[in-house]
Amino acid sequence: MKERLLEEAKHIEPELIRIRRAFHEEPEISRHEVKTAEKIRKELEAIGGFKIRTGVAGNGILADLDGGKPGKKIALRADMDALSIQEETGLPFASKNDGVMHACGHDNHMTCLLGAAMILKKYQSELPGSVRLIFQPAEELSPTGGSRAMISEGALEDVDAVFGLHVFPDCTAGKIAVKVGPQMAASDHFSIQITGASSHGAMPHQGKDALLAGAQFVTAVQNIVSRNTDPLEPCVVTIGIMKAGTRYNIVPGECYLEGTVRTYSPEVRATAKRRLREVLDGICLAMGCRGELNYEDGYCALRNDPVKTEYMHGVIRDLFGAENDLTPEKPAMTAEDFAFYLEEKPGAFAWLGTQAEDDPEVWPLHSSRYKANEAVLWRGAAFLAGLVMESGSMK
Amino acid sequence: MKERLLEEAKHIEPELIRIRRAFHEEPEISRHEVKTAEKIRKELEAIGGFKIRTGVAGNGILADLDGGKPGKKIALRADMDALSIQEETGLPFASKNDGVMHACGHDNHMTCLLGAAMILKKYQSELPGSVRLIFQPAEELSPTGGSRAMISEGALEDVDAVFGLHVFPDCTAGKIAVKVGPQMAASDHFSIQITGASSHGAMPHQGKDALLAGAQFVTAVQNIVSRNTDPLEPCVVTIGIMKAGTRYNIVPGECYLEGTVRTYSPEVRATAKRRLREVLDGICLAMGCRGELNYEDGYCALRNDPVKTEYMHGVIRDLFGAENDLTPEKPAMTAEDFAFYLEEKPGAFAWLGTQAEDDPEVWPLHSSRYKANEAVLWRGAAFLAGLVMESGSMK
Amino acid sequence: MKERLLEEAKHIEPELIRIRRAFHEEPEISRHEVKTAEKIRKELEAIGGFKIRTGVAGNGILADLDGGKPGKKIALRADMDALSIQEETGLPFASKNDGVMHACGHDNHMTCLLGAAMILKKYQSELPGSVRLIFQPAEELSPTGGSRAMISEGALEDVDAVFGLHVFPDCTAGKIAVKVGPQMAASDHFSIQITGASSHGAMPHQGKDALLAGAQFVTAVQNIVSRNTDPLEPCVVTIGIMKAGTRYNIVPGECYLEGTVRTYSPEVRATAKRRLREVLDGICLAMGCRGELNYEDGYCALRNDPVKTEYMHGVIRDLFGAENDLTPEKPAMTAEDFAFYLEEKPGAFAWLGTQAEDDPEVWPLHSSRYKANEAVLWRGAAFLAGLVMESGSMK
Amino acid sequence: MKERLLEEAKHIEPELIRIRRAFHEEPEISRHEVKTAEKIRKELEAIGGFKIRTGVAGNGILADLDGGKPGKKIALRADMDALSIQEETGLPFASKNDGVMHACGHDNHMTCLLGAAMILKKYQSELPGSVRLIFQPAEELSPTGGSRAMISEGALEDVDAVFGLHVFPDCTAGKIAVKVGPQMAASDHFSIQITGASSHGAMPHQGKDALLAGAQFVTAVQNIVSRNTDPLEPCVVTIGIMKAGTRYNIVPGECYLEGTVRTYSPEVRATAKRRLREVLDGICLAMGCRGELNYEDGYCALRNDPVKTEYMHGVIRDLFGAENDLTPEKPAMTAEDFAFYLEEKPGAFAWLGTQAEDDPEVWPLHSSRYKANEAVLWRGAAFLAGLVMESGSMK
Repeated sequence: MKERLLEEAKHIEPELIRIRRAFHEEPEISRHEVKTAEKIRKELEAIGGFKIRTGVAGNGILADLDGGKPGKKIALRADMDALSIQEETGLPFASKNDGVMHACGHDNHMTCLLGAAMILKKYQSELPGSVRLIFQPAEELSPTGGSRAMISEGALEDVDAVFGLHVFPDCTAGKIAVKVGPQMAASDHFSIQITGASSHGAMPHQGKDALLAGAQFVTAVQNIVSRNTDPLEPCVVTIGIMKAGTRYNIVPGECYLEGTVRTYSPEVRATAKRRLREVLDGICLAMGCRGELNYEDGYCALRNDPVKTEYMHGVIRDLFGAENDLTPEKPAMTAEDFAFYLEEKPGAFAWLGTQAEDDPEVWPLHSSRYKANEAVLWRGAAFLAGLVMESGSMK
Repeated sequence: MKERLLEEAKHIEPELIRIRRAFHEEPEISRHEVKTAEKIRKELEAIGGFKIRTGVAGNGILADLDGGKPGKKIALRADMDALSIQEETGLPFASKNDGVMHACGHDNHMTCLLGAAMILKKYQSELPGSVRLIFQPAEELSPTGGSRAMISEGALEDVDAVFGLHVFPDCTAGKIAVKVGPQMAASDHFSIQITGASSHGAMPHQGKDALLAGAQFVTAVQNIVSRNTDPLEPCVVTIGIMKAGTRYNIVPGECYLEGTVRTYSPEVRATAKRRLREVLDGICLAMGCRGELNYEDGYCALRNDPVKTEYMHGVIRDLFGAENDLTPEKPAMTAEDFAFYLEEKPGAFAWLGTQAEDDPEVWPLHSSRYKANEAVLWRGAAFLAGLVMESGSMK
Repeated sequence: MKERLLEEAKHIEPELIRIRRAFHEEPEISRHEVKTAEKIRKELEAIGGFKIRTGVAGNGILADLDGGKPGKKIALRADMDALSIQEETGLPFASKNDGVMHACGHDNHMTCLLGAAMILKKYQSELPGSVRLIFQPAEELSPTGGSRAMISEGALEDVDAVFGLHVFPDCTAGKIAVKVGPQMAASDHFSIQITGASSHGAMPHQGKDALLAGAQFVTAVQNIVSRNTDPLEPCVVTIGIMKAGTRYNIVPGECYLEGTVRTYSPEVRATAKRRLREVLDGICLAMGCRGELNYEDGYCALRNDPVKTEYMHGVIRDLFGAENDLTPEKPAMTAEDFAFYLEEKPGAFAWLGTQAEDDPEVWPLHSSRYKANEAVLWRGAAFLAGLVMESGSMK
Repeated sequence: MKERLLEEAKHIEPELIRIRRAFHEEPEISRHEVKTAEKIRKELEAIGGFKIRTGVAGNGILADLDGGKPGKKIALRADMDALSIQEETGLPFASKNDGVMHACGHDNHMTCLLGAAMILKKYQSELPGSVRLIFQPAEELSPTGGSRAMISEGALEDVDAVFGLHVFPDCTAGKIAVKVGPQMAASDHFSIQITGASSHGAMPHQGKDALLAGAQFVTAVQNIVSRNTDPLEPCVVTIGIMKAGTRYNIVPGECYLEGTVRTYSPEVRATAKRRLREVLDGICLAMGCRGELNYEDGYCALRNDPVKTEYMHGVIRDLFGAENDLTPEKPAMTAEDFAFYLEEKPGAFAWLGTQAEDDPEVWPLHSSRYKANEAVLWRGAAFLAGLVMESGSMK
């Protein structure tokens, strides 16, 4: 089986490259994946055999295929949306949509999943159990990404295990990395409005300096990570925006702040949230200002199931050899709403290396210059198909 | 003389009210005082006898009149420009120019000076020496107001003493306040750019947080006033603007700050300037960032000459009675580019009360609701004329 | 009179030098001025004629003398206590009491007052009204100095005016400086205990870092002066002591702070006091700690009466010439409990220059090397005597 | 073998309890372990057969025993010193030495090692290879503990593997916990002297406030952990001591700080060290002060060898059952100079649970109330002996 599967994956490589470039050329931002969904539908119909459900949770698509043998139901997920970034790769198939770019590689994810669909259709008679393809919109829309809506519209019904993958520029193409337990962080969003009182800049005692209160808050908030959370539990509190004042000689009466909290431990997450409020209240009391905190719980931490991760490692080794099966030393502090699928069903999420070995430049995800090595497409398709075809051995 | 002078001033009051409302209706911002200058020119021509020079330092006007007796040359100055403020007084003659308003009362200053011109022309034969009227543009354009340009174009040539006034809502109409020595503060402007390095908000160690550096700077800068300057010498350092960051989950690589320094003592001014740079350099060193300070010396402190101030007090008492002659307890931390005339020639600058006694609402200067009591116009005209007519007794 | 008075003062100079050195050699700290009081008593008895009352408010002495002519009752005050400082002047008559020194010059004050007593006794028949000498203990014992106790034990009964002086190293000997209104500041004391929770230094999240809370408080407290008080009203908030922690690897659970507030305006004083508490409460809330503030009102601001100050200037000019009559530009931020006498009775407090013209080294008061020029003694005696002898002309 | 070994360990339990209480009663602080060393020597001589070397690296002892079979040389280490803590356990055998206490449980470590010596002597003929007992002084003397001196005096010569253990109140007695890789943190010590300039508290502008500079430093130093180090790599920077100022009304010219840095990653350790210096330099520049940092590298991170840790797990399971073989989820941020042995030789370090199951009170190590459950003694002895007896199977 393994040999035939790999062969078929290589066989469809030109097809996959064509599909991926079409996605790449017409990126659409979160909740506006209309043409993207249309492309997916057409490809699925061309493949045939899948029971297709469109318009799920907005522009999402679910597609089911039953195998010729008894077995489990495996869900495979790809995300569909692009980012508000102006592409600067210079590729011939670069984005035609101004200010929008597949800089997070979702074009690859969809293509790999369509490739898996082709392979699985070809070997349908030998397929154990069944497969559900999940094409999910709005992954980038933290804190309210599309996965929860897909789940509530039935994406995980009757599913035994769920798998997903993400391109990963820190590894060379061909390598696949996955680890048991936490692999991506919980990510929350907060915004803060501090209100003091404006006055002439020459008479500060007649006002309440909201800019200074904001500055004091920003310095005090560092203590959450340095003093209030277990040093063995990762935690990041970043203030990404601070805006105060309209004119150089007026004491600002308002200060706006916005930021993010990244954690793994739910306890640390709760501590950070509670401490943000306490620090804000305390600093505002000290400065005679009022502070309002709007804290939004975003994606939870992504935790891979031990058994399913072990199974995934087995499939990687079987298809691509032990040298391509990696266990990352550390998780990432970035976030992914695949985490919510794993809250519901056992499964695992893999990082797919995309760096071309001979390319001296490494651009990170979300960079306007990020380029995925297309050699990853047939491998990703084979990998996802393999996760279904070998599921007879999955515990 | 005194009785005739006051009588004449009251006599022209309707005229002054008309003129002032015309100025008020058509305010023009700094360096754009074109129609305003035209109005002044026409009024001066209607009065007759003055040697008029227009287009001085932009839209400025100098107008000279020689008296019938020997004596000194007295310069009287009024400022012409308005502010970028949307008027909200509801007056029938409120500003017709959107977003522009005579909220600093310069309409009154010009009117008083034109009124003085009328009176002085009437009593020209008895006028000792001569008078020069200075209509100055761009007073609000700190740090580079119009007075220095007027001076370099000859406004103070051959002048023995220079006087000016400003409406003052903290006193009731009729009162005039002036004090020996410092009456208004030196005012400087600075802007700062802090450059760190941007990174993903989840990986702050890959960046250099310029927002945090800015916050540390703002808190550390408080020490200039609290620790580094003589507590007996007034000093204000206000940060009026802080802007950093574009997105909640990105560590900001840039932070922009803008502010003002207010002082009286040149030594304290120099200390504040030096310390701003030291604090910026130190905080940037501590935070791994780079900081650039652009510091612009603005208006110097306004210091009234002791002898001329005494003379001014005498004129006030003579014309309006001792009960209307005030010595303010404290100077103001606000600034005025009349200060530069006083660097060149002895003179004094008075505050003219404008608050109507029966008006319960006091709106400060630069407020969109500031209303001057028109009863001030004839008094201001008489006061300025008196400073010239009585100058035979001036030491 | 003036010539005879000066002559007599110079005549007793050797006597005054002897007395002053005796005081200097045996300094006694606040509330322990036992031998000092004994010396004063003996000298007064040797002069004769004074009605002496010892043991007032501890070691204080009141001594009254009626003049031969009708007039007002003038009180003259000298302070008696020394400081806990180890003298390092190398003088032959340096302190014999280890760790105690007349570093604030009270030895001179007492000597000048005894000198005045000698002169006044000599010219008793011409003395208008009467004089009361006030030898006051515990001036250095801020916030609860000796003057209030002296007053409550009758020091100002029937007194018409009260005068005092202080040696002043910033002027050369011979000069006397005094000004109307505020001359020395109000001085308050505060201590603060911040309580968090101790933990192992490697596990800060198990504790509440009181040292860090203290550091945040110290930086935030700078804002009181820089933002919350009128820049035209002097205010100083100094934290003089901070102590936290016992071992480098333990998170401190306690932090102790102590400091002083200096002001002139009662309103600013109240603001500083209120803001200290607010900043402490706010920072402790932000840091999860508890804070206790113990604030003690100390000496009030010393304000010279305008009429009596004018009188004092007249006496200085009369006795020593206009060139020795100074009006200081600025008051001092240091404090003096003579302020409380001036709360009760009109009077004035002068600074007596003590710097030898040929001495290149100027050591400030409270320095272990402060040396008064003894040439000041006869002048001070003459000055104080003059304030009584000329009081016939006092308004 | 296993049954006989456990039986023998239980058999000597009363002996072990006696020995441990003797150690506990006479604790000695680091580098003063004279009587402790004497007790060890006597017990070893009583056991017999060991080649004993005393006075190693001060009060250290090395004792070698060759087995009757060929095999590897295993080193077992126990630490000897006590802490400067006043015992408050109320035990009948509580410390008789005022202010000194075996609060870190080293009394148990030495006893377990002596117990192992008894067992190994008994089964010498079956012992594979040889054993070296390392009794090490001054473990608590971070940053310069006794292990490096022991190593340089030959403690690890010819050794194939080195093992140690530490009592651990977070687990119940009987459990043993060990994990591959980092188990205890690197620990560094630093002290800082900030020098400004003292001045009267009322005239802060005449000084340079070292207390305020210290406070600014403490708040800025939080950024090292919150911003400058990888959130996935543990790092703690604790300031344990801050002392500034002598009197409430004097601006402090000196500020002393002392603290610790805890890390695992050498890169993070280097970053923290570098950043401490940069923050100090920057804050001092900003505040016009000078700062001196004295940074001492202390214990490195303790990393267990994967192969030896696996072997250790096997011995635990074999002797005490799988239910007593634990893998801690997280390492500790505390430090241990056993780390240096592991820099030289492969080995592992275990945590030995000491909490009595029925004791509701858990007192941490270094607490004046820490009590070890004596049931741990025979188990620790059996465990250490087992590590030697089973070493034939060790890879």
